[in-house]
Amino acid sequence: MSARNKNQAAETNSDGRFAYEGLDRAIHEKARLGILTSLVAHPEGLLFGDLKELCSLTDGNLNRHLAVLEEAGLVTASRNTKRGRPQTIVTMTTAGRRRFQEYLNVLEQVLADAASQQTVGTRRKLAPGLSPS
Amino acid sequence: MSARNKNQAAETNSDGRFAYEGLDRAIHEKARLGILTSLVAHPEGLLFGDLKELCSLTDGNLNRHLAVLEEAGLVTASRNTKRGRPQTIVTMTTAGRRRFQEYLNVLEQVLADAASQQTVGTRRKLAPGLSPS
Repeated sequence: MSARNKNQAAETNSDGRFAYEGLDRAIHEKARLGILTSLVAHPEGLLFGDLKELCSLTDGNLNRHLAVLEEAGLVTASRNTKRGRPQTIVTMTTAGRRRFQEYLNVLEQVLADAASQQTVGTRRKLAPGLSPS
Repeated sequence: MSARNKNQAAETNSDGRFAYEGLDRAIHEKARLGILTSLVAHPEGLLFGDLKELCSLTDGNLNRHLAVLEEAGLVTASRNTKRGRPQTIVTMTTAGRRRFQEYLNVLEQVLADAASQQTVGTRRKLAPGLSPS
């Protein structure tokens, strides 16, 4: 930490302050974030086709992201048949729900940081003796 | 949309409801999200070394992510010398600030969706005539 930002550092910053390690990559990817948010709504699970439409994904993309989510233990996909036609129902696991909630807590922190930082930035810019940039 | 989820769909869902197109990939990547949140705090810019520490990144990683952010027009990196030593100061562009705020608005929406969806899920599970799963 340089002298330049030493005072600011003392106020709000420390090494790794903005590393956000809790943003689990299995969850954070944009499409998977959409998939998990959809599934939170549906404890009974969602059909593959419905999930695809809700998240505007192709079959290939949804399959690829579900493979990542299953591998991470966040969702399960069960295949069965209905009137002779195969169907896939995707549900969130209990661990998935817990980890998604932990992820959401970090996301809240990012938003809180961005909001407070913007306030600090504005206040600093307008502090007496400093001309606005 | 199948019959299975038709009633739920009528309540809150429609195709693409959870696609979150506004989650700009240049911003959403975990390390870049940290970099931009740090920079929001510092309208005067941050030294490369300070940014590296705040975000727990290596030189190589920070360089790589800054290249993406510069290419997207979100930040600028200016090189100069101080007492004969080269230094790099990274600042957010005006467009960067605007686009980051737009991104944060979508993030707020994700959190609101997840929160409301969890409430709906809970209510449904406990509705009369349905035994909790």
